[in-house]
Parts: sequence; structure tokens; C-alpha cells
Amino acid sequence: MASLQQVIFDELDSLVLVDSHSHINPRAPASETIADLLGYHYYTELVHSAGMPRAEIEQENLSPEEKVGRLFESLHEINHTVQWFWFVDLSSHLFGFKEQTIDRKNWKSLYDQAFAAMNRPDWENEVLTKSKIEKIFLTNDFDDPLDDFDTHRYVPCLRTDDLVFHLHLEKTRSRLSAATSSTLHSLDDLHRCLGLLFERFVRCNAKACAISLPPWFTPCHIPLHDTATTEAFHRILAGNREPSEADKKQVVYWVFWRLTEFCAEYRLPFDLMIGVNRKVYPGGVYQGQDLYDSRWSMIQYADLFNAFPNVKFPISVLASVSNQELVDYAWIFPNVIAHGHWWYSNTPSFIRHDLQARLDAVPRGKLVGYYSDAYKLEFILPKYQMYKRILADCLAETICIGRGQSESFAIELGKQILRGNVDCIFFSN
Amino acid sequence: MASLQQVIFDELDSLVLVDSHSHINPRAPASETIADLLGYHYYTELVHSAGMPRAEIEQENLSPEEKVGRLFESLHEINHTVQWFWFVDLSSHLFGFKEQTIDRKNWKSLYDQAFAAMNRPDWENEVLTKSKIEKIFLTNDFDDPLDDFDTHRYVPCLRTDDLVFHLHLEKTRSRLSAATSSTLHSLDDLHRCLGLLFERFVRCNAKACAISLPPWFTPCHIPLHDTATTEAFHRILAGNREPSEADKKQVVYWVFWRLTEFCAEYRLPFDLMIGVNRKVYPGGVYQGQDLYDSRWSMIQYADLFNAFPNVKFPISVLASVSNQELVDYAWIFPNVIAHGHWWYSNTPSFIRHDLQARLDAVPRGKLVGYYSDAYKLEFILPKYQMYKRILADCLAETICIGRGQSESFAIELGKQILRGNVDCIFFSN
Amino acid sequence: MASLQQVIFDELDSLVLVDSHSHINPRAPASETIADLLGYHYYTELVHSAGMPRAEIEQENLSPEEKVGRLFESLHEINHTVQWFWFVDLSSHLFGFKEQTIDRKNWKSLYDQAFAAMNRPDWENEVLTKSKIEKIFLTNDFDDPLDDFDTHRYVPCLRTDDLVFHLHLEKTRSRLSAATSSTLHSLDDLHRCLGLLFERFVRCNAKACAISLPPWFTPCHIPLHDTATTEAFHRILAGNREPSEADKKQVVYWVFWRLTEFCAEYRLPFDLMIGVNRKVYPGGVYQGQDLYDSRWSMIQYADLFNAFPNVKFPISVLASVSNQELVDYAWIFPNVIAHGHWWYSNTPSFIRHDLQARLDAVPRGKLVGYYSDAYKLEFILPKYQMYKRILADCLAETICIGRGQSESFAIELGKQILRGNVDCIFFSN
Repeated sequence: MASLQQVIFDELDSLVLVDSHSHINPRAPASETIADLLGYHYYTELVHSAGMPRAEIEQENLSPEEKVGRLFESLHEINHTVQWFWFVDLSSHLFGFKEQTIDRKNWKSLYDQAFAAMNRPDWENEVLTKSKIEKIFLTNDFDDPLDDFDTHRYVPCLRTDDLVFHLHLEKTRSRLSAATSSTLHSLDDLHRCLGLLFERFVRCNAKACAISLPPWFTPCHIPLHDTATTEAFHRILAGNREPSEADKKQVVYWVFWRLTEFCAEYRLPFDLMIGVNRKVYPGGVYQGQDLYDSRWSMIQYADLFNAFPNVKFPISVLASVSNQELVDYAWIFPNVIAHGHWWYSNTPSFIRHDLQARLDAVPRGKLVGYYSDAYKLEFILPKYQMYKRILADCLAETICIGRGQSESFAIELGKQILRGNVDCIFFSN
Repeated sequence: MASLQQVIFDELDSLVLVDSHSHINPRAPASETIADLLGYHYYTELVHSAGMPRAEIEQENLSPEEKVGRLFESLHEINHTVQWFWFVDLSSHLFGFKEQTIDRKNWKSLYDQAFAAMNRPDWENEVLTKSKIEKIFLTNDFDDPLDDFDTHRYVPCLRTDDLVFHLHLEKTRSRLSAATSSTLHSLDDLHRCLGLLFERFVRCNAKACAISLPPWFTPCHIPLHDTATTEAFHRILAGNREPSEADKKQVVYWVFWRLTEFCAEYRLPFDLMIGVNRKVYPGGVYQGQDLYDSRWSMIQYADLFNAFPNVKFPISVLASVSNQELVDYAWIFPNVIAHGHWWYSNTPSFIRHDLQARLDAVPRGKLVGYYSDAYKLEFILPKYQMYKRILADCLAETICIGRGQSESFAIELGKQILRGNVDCIFFSN
Repeated sequence: MASLQQVIFDELDSLVLVDSHSHINPRAPASETIADLLGYHYYTELVHSAGMPRAEIEQENLSPEEKVGRLFESLHEINHTVQWFWFVDLSSHLFGFKEQTIDRKNWKSLYDQAFAAMNRPDWENEVLTKSKIEKIFLTNDFDDPLDDFDTHRYVPCLRTDDLVFHLHLEKTRSRLSAATSSTLHSLDDLHRCLGLLFERFVRCNAKACAISLPPWFTPCHIPLHDTATTEAFHRILAGNREPSEADKKQVVYWVFWRLTEFCAEYRLPFDLMIGVNRKVYPGGVYQGQDLYDSRWSMIQYADLFNAFPNVKFPISVLASVSNQELVDYAWIFPNVIAHGHWWYSNTPSFIRHDLQARLDAVPRGKLVGYYSDAYKLEFILPKYQMYKRILADCLAETICIGRGQSESFAIELGKQILRGNVDCIFFSN
């Protein structure tokens, strides 16, 4: 079977891909030093968890080299993890660093070798070419300018967490006013502002709207013209005191429903990334404070899926115990799409478990295999390599051996999962 | 190991089986055309989920051939799924259709070949013989006549969903009156009617009582003579207005407890199929609207298991995340039996995962391996084939390699799981 | 790969270990007859679940031989389980019993052979040497004397379930008074008594505090000087009536927080064993009555982990569906440590599943691989053998094949998981 897997892998690995979710900054997509790579929260939070104090990791005014040197005092504590494997893999394939191990003894030579590579004039293109990536979705704040980068390579995606969860903050409302050159004195104003955002994003080639949601979130229909929400929003606007939880939630659910209406109107898929609780560990490093409560259910979204049959919902779930619900809701609801392997479930044992279940029973057009979630281009290669290995294994086992299908059938399915479905779901509207 | 699995599989595959749960109609157990097979909700809901409008699938007055032709416009969307594999497998083994693929190009020749087979005078027996099935449990409405088929081949099972959940509907109560030739004017009447149903079913060779239950269901003891229930039932009978949720639930739990008492009295196992929410997607195709909320626990049934030590409860759970609870409750409670792999968990990756856990720690006499849940006889063969392959794999890995037991030990265990326990649990009372 | 696993296993199997959690009685650590082994709740509850009445199993004044004879009338019902495999394995390796099967035909010869072995003067040391175990943690009641055994071999651990959950019982308070030679008339008294326990345990070489917790438990900060708790405790002390649930919970959470403060003060790791509901099946055999509700979340402990950054929390979870939360909380919180595979999750399929996830993303210093949870020394060997086989498999698959690391890297990691981390976490304070 090993050679079957290899044949399938090689074919999948020859594809040029579109990465349907990342946090790449299109103005600085690649790294300047490996401090940009090892500063990724996966490393800082893991070495912190292994014992390194946050203050040491996040001390201000550290030079990149100093920062990397410090991290290497702890990185051996995580040298068996898949996250470390990403770094070793990219060091080998992108920088040509071929030593058996990378540790506090030899990091400096890696640093220099990577520095030289990153300073090659065409480094960005070099990484993209080696990674076989053609387009990358971004995660744009609603007030991001979208006119200073190539939106065909770096595809805008309207990220709406602030709009849904932070509109009770004056800062968010000011940003919204500014971004839309509008006043914001009423719920009607708010509706108009949201519409302007969609109009601008779609005009600038945005291909998705996205949001991350906490476990308690249960979307419910609140009409566009709704007295309770109008009053709640006015109390928030008045700003006389800290808004009540009830007022905040009223606006939260109203805005979420409006965003979904705009997704329908503008034919944008709405990426739901479900399950995260923010700041569970406030003492953690930057971006390393969020965890979750796995006690939620896709049934919380039944009303939403029923109300918007024409909106495509590519869905990511944070924990593997939610994967069967995702499989089964995608099996039944035409508008539910299984999307990648997110964050805490983006490790080989969960990817394998979750992917096998998806291959058994989700229509093939609704399997979007993977996205990188990367902050820097260099991570796209090792993450996709990991996924493609597992996908090739699962296709060999499940599709060829389990169901007696041919190698070419498995390869075609794999290509659809890796690339074809991204094109159809995000680019065919 | 491959040959070890094959030896075990061959031995298991030689057994003649009893299928302990199906939806077979004993008056029309086999199919007339492949429209009867592809009309199975697994196919209609999957092609609908893949994008085919419900109206196209369920248009009235379609000829079987037209219906099949339409479905084949979408079935390639699910040609990697295990459900499709069942269809390919049965087409090969029952109709002798040996082409590599079945798709919109060649379905007509399959249709004709199947039609010819299905019209052979002895098709029903042919299917049963090829499927090596001797007896099949039915799912009978409480008012099903039981005197017009062979109840030794098609074993009656009293399905009680309507009695528990729909007794607030006049229609259900009228059916109950008619089925028992009784008046229904009081809780005492209701109790007597339920008793008459059990008496009739047991006289007609019924071997189980069964019910499917939603995640929120938490059986509680309500005494036979109970003022609150008497009053609630009278309000329902009066029919002056829509019954309150409280009144409905009062009657729901009273009836459920009485059914369990009758199971004890008549020594019928009570199949609990736990976890389904009905009509989560009301826009879905027929039988393709139900999903679930995986947040429930077997602990909701602790009072029931404690109160009825002499009732056997073969239990099916809808989601694999409930499987460990099922294993552990079967490990501790003598009256809890692990029963098959149900619906959304009836896919290879979940069967494997769930079966391995059961093989580790459930007493061997309480493992009822599989049932087909089939609506038409033709599905029994491919579903059991799938299961037997996985069972042979798990026995080889877990029992022979993992625990050093002999091939013959594994085979004997497999036979008990496949057949022996069905005999002991359902036929030895 | 088989030989790679074997090489890793052989290296791991050569280690001398420290067992970080057991229920060994240091005054009678080894068995006198196999009745002591087959009386383990895993066997009595499984044969009871398989149909043997509790009265037969627990009849008083049975001789050990009679008891064993009775159990063998049912033990064939569980001869495929992993628990039975432990018994077969220890019979072979400790007693030299080499017959292919052990059943009602030949148990007597095993009984005699084991009896002879157990009566050898140095049996305890013999078992420890064969099991390659150097130190074993105990589970000591707070009033256990600690001065009548070798606390360097049998390491005391302060078990605090009674203090947290049963302080509303007069019996518990009397024991506490007696154990500390103190009066107990106020919350201040209680605080002082708790401190005296810690002082005594640490003086006697205790290396951990431990508690098992129900799914609903959600630790919350209650200040040392707290009016509501003072009043609740006084009402309990007054003893005029059955304490209210509210008063009990008030004291429960107050005591738990104090215990954690003492763990910080005395630098004791606090083993949390999370998830068990007691007496779910009151009709079950001794120690075979507990089950659980898998609906809980590690987020219930977020406040605790945040409040005590300097307390190490080795955490065991009862159900495999909680394993990913454990992995992810250990990945983020420096003070959360993944500890062994507990009770209902101590079976090969769950160990494998849970261990693979831990190997992917938990810092290597926070993986405490296994503990025996044994009541008698003889079980340590087969349980650790089972674990070491699975660990070797996972290291070969995940670390060598999956991540391309060397055999020696995998072995070093395995040794840290098996032994090194126990030393660092429990013995370096």
C-alpha cells in the first residue's frame, strides 16, 4: 500500500493550489528573518506552556536574532510536535537547511542561511512557486484598504468578528463610520454601513465573508426593523454607561443576521469558524490565550441554515468531537460545506480521524480539504505537505482498498478536494 | 495479517444470520426496480445535499425509470461514499452487474438487468439466500396487522414512537382505539390498551419493543396511578385547545414507563435508539430531515436501568462521541447491551472506532454486532458485507495480534457477535 | 515497521519505573491468593454485567478458593477483554503459568501455582523486580498513618475526596479532628486542620495531593475569610438538620480552594481526576457502581489554572471525548499536565487514540505517560506492558515514520514520557 499512497501523493503534490483561509499580510507576506516564523503563536505558546515566562518571550525591543536565540533555549521541549516538524520541514525545503536537527547549537547557521534566502529579491514568488500556491485568501478587517496589493493573488475576505462582537465599543463604531464615510446614529445607519462594506469588498474581488464564533453562539432571526434592537442600539450609542449583556447580545444577533443577508445578496460564501472562547488564559502569550468548551452543537445553527438556503457556509470546527456533526450536517444540508482542519484540530491524528469520516459520507463537491491559516507564506508549504500526506493515505485506504476504486479515481477525488472545490465554491458566483 | 483477516472473514461470511432491526415491509420485502433502491433516503438526501432540488427528486407521478434517470444526473457527486459502495456492491452480487462503474452512461443497462432479476418468481428467496439471512426483525406500527405474513421469517417488533410522542394527537388515539377495539377515555383505558397491544404482538411472535428517542429525553418514574398525569391526559382528551408542553411531557414519560413495565411483564427486550432530533431540516427530502445534538448522556437513563433490572435494553446511539458511554454503561449495567451501528454512525470509520472500543471491554454476550436498518432486502447484503470486513479486521488486530488469541478464538467470538447473541437476547425468553 | 516498534519497545521495557498513581496498600502490597486479583472490581463488575448476581460474588465468608471457583463460572464471558488479558499476562509472567487458556477446567492448577509463588518469602520484591518498578504512589486517606511502611518505596499521596465532598458528615469531621488532634468548631479550625494534614504528609515524604471530581464540579475562588462559608459551615456543624445542598457546595468549593493554596505553599502537584459520577448503579458490586456524564469541559477549571500558576496539575480525564480538551489545555496552560489513561479510558483503543493526539502537540515535559491505578502489585506488570506496547507503536508511527525522527530520538522521548517526567514533576520540588 505504501507505493499506492506514494503514487497518489505525487499526483496531488503536483497541483497548484488556492489557499482558502490565511492571515497573510499582503503588504509583507513573507518573512524577513526566522524570528517572523518562530514568533508564530504556535511556537511562543508552546514554549511558554513548556515553562518559558511570557516576559522573556515578549520583551520589547529584542532584535530578531536575540528573540530567536531565546526561543531556542526552550524549543527542544517541543521538538517532537507537529508544529516543530513544520518548521524543520520548511527550513529544509525553503532554505535548504539539511542538518539532522535544529537546536540551540546550530540555530545561528540556520538563521543566516534563511536570512540570505529571505533577502533574495524574488523571495515571495520563490516561496509561492515552491509551495505551489496561486492564490491565498486573506483575513481583512472591515476597514482594511484593499487597493494596495494584488487582489487576484491575495484574495480579500471580509472578517466580521469586530462587527458582530465589538460594536458596543466606541472604537469599532468610529472605525465603521470612517471606513464607510457615514454617520452612525441609528440601526438604519448601521444597516447601510454594513451594505457599503460588502459593496466595497465585492468590488475589490473579495470572495468570502468570515467570522469566528464562540461555543454559546446560536444565531436567531431578528427582523431588519426591530424595536427591541433599535432601542438596544440607541442605549449603546448613548454611551451613558457600560452596555448590558442583553443589549449587546441583541445587537450581536441582529448584525449577524444582516451579514448573512448581505452574503446572500452579494453571493459571498460565509465561512463560519465555530467554537473558540477568547482569553481563557489571559496570562498567555499574544494569540496564545484562547481555548474552548467542546459542549456545543451544530443544531444551534439549524435556523440559520434553514433561513439561508442560497448562502454557502464553509464550516470549520475547533474540536474533533464536533467533526461528526459537521459531517452529518453537510450530508443533509445542501448549504453546509466541510472546510479544512482548524487550529487545535490541525494535527495529524485529528486530521486523519476527521478526514476519514468526511470521505465516507459527505458529497464530494462539499469537501474543501485544507487551508493554511498561515501568518507568513513560508508556513503554507509544510502545512499543506502534512495534509497531502494524510489525504493520500486516507484515499489509498478508504477509497482504493476499502471501496475498491482505482488509483485514478482516488487521485481525481483528491484533486477535487484540494483544488476543484475551492474554485467552485468561492469563485463561481 | 491480510490473510489472517481473510480467514476470519471467510468464516464469518459463511454464517446464516438474523437481522435484528430493519424497516422491511413484509408484504413487499424486495424491490421491483432499482428506483426502490435509489429512492432510499441515503441516496435522495445525499444528492439533494449535493445540489439537486427536492422538487425534482420528489416530483409526483414519475415513472421508476424517469426517477432513476434523474437521480443519475447527480449520483456521481456521491460516488466515493460508502452508501454508493453499497449500491455498487449489491448490483454486482445480486444482479451480476460487473461493469467497473455505474453512472449516467450505463445505468439503463443496469436498470434492465436488475428489472429482469427482480421479476424472477423467487427473487425474495434468492436475495435472502445470497444474503445468508434467515430472519429479519421488522419495525411495526402498533396498529399493523400481523397476520398476513410469515412472522417466523419477518419477526414483528412493536415500534412505540407514536405511542410515546404522538398521543396528544387525536389521530394516534383513534388508531389506538381501533387497534385495540377499546374506548380511550381515561388513563386507565390507555393502560389497558397498551397491554392489549403487547398481548397481541407477543402472540404474533414479536421479539422486541423499540423506540427512537431525542437527545433531551430523560425517562423518569411516574407511578401507574398518578394524579398529575390523569389530569394532563384528561386535558388532552378534552381537546379544547392545543395541549401544553407540560401536559404532553407528563404523558410522554408516563407512557414510556408503562411500556417498559410491559416489556418486563412480556419479557421483551426494549430497543432504545437514542439521539435523533426530528425535522431539523424541514426543507429536506422525505426521511432526510433528521439530525441531532450530540450533547446528551447515558446518565439520563440511569434511573430506567436501575428500575428495570430484568428488562434487556439493546441500545443504539446516533453519534460516535456517545460510543464510549455506551461501552461503559454496558460494562457496568447487566441490562445494557450494545446494539449495532446506527444511521449516521453506520459508516466504516465510525464502525471501526466504535467496534474496537466495544471489543476491549464489553462482556461478549452483550455485543450485538450489526443490523441492517434496511427498507428493502437488497441492502442487507452490502451492509453486512461492510460490517463483516470491519469485524474481521478488528478481530485480527485486537484479538489475535493485540491479545495473542488464536484464529479460532477470534472466529468463535465473531460468530457470537454476529449471530449467537441475537439468538440469546431476543429468542431465549 | 514491526521491527522498529520492537526495538523501541525493548528499550522502553528495560527502564525501571515510578508508578505515579495506585491504590496499593503498603502493608499488604502483594496478593495472598488469586482471589485478591480476581476480586479486583474490573473482574467482579464485568462478570456481574455478564449476568452473575452480585449476591453470589459478594457472599460473605467465602474462602478465597470458593470465590475464585465461582468467578470462573462466568469469567469466560469476558475472556476477550483487555482486563482478562491483564490476568492471563500476569499469570504467565509472574506465576509462570503457560497453558494456552485459563478457564473453569484448569483454574485450580493456576490457583495452586500462584499460591506457591505468593508464599515465597520475597514475593513482594520479586514482583517489583519483574515489573521493573522502583517507587509507587499510594492513595492515602487523610488520616492514614504514614509511619509504618517504607515511604521511599510506597510514596504517600494525600487523597482529598473526603475532605472536599464529605465534610458535612459528622464522621469525616471526627476523623479530621482525631487525625490532627484538634478541635473543629469553626472555619478557622478547619483551615488549621487542613494545614496540619499537609504538614504531616509532606514531612512523611508525600509527593502529591489528589482528588477525583464529578463532571459538574467547577472550582471557584472563595476567600479564606468568607461570611457565607462561615455561616454555612456553622449550620453544618450545628447539625440540627440535614445540611442544604447550597451549604454543602459552599463548603465544598471553599475547601477545594484552600487545598490548592496548600499545594502551592507545600509545592505539591495536585492530581485532578476529572469526570466520575459516584453510585450511578447502586445495585452494582463493590467499586463497580460509578459511571459518568461526558458533558463537561476543561473550561470549568480555567479560573483555577489562572489563579494558581505555580501549582502543577497532572490531570486525568475519564472519557476519551475529553482528551482533546486535555491536550489543548496542556498545550496552552503551563501548569496543566496530561496524566496517564484513567479507568474507562485505560483500554487499548482509547489509549492509542488519546496518546497519538498528545504526542502531536503537548510539550514533551508535560506528558506523564501512565500509572497503574493498581490495588495489588501484580497488576502493575501487565498494565504497563500494555501501555508500553502502544507507546512503542505510536512512537514508531508518529515520531519515526510521521516526522522522520530517528529511532534514538523516539526512544529518548519514550523514556521521558515513561520515567523522566515523573521524576521532574513529582520529585523536583
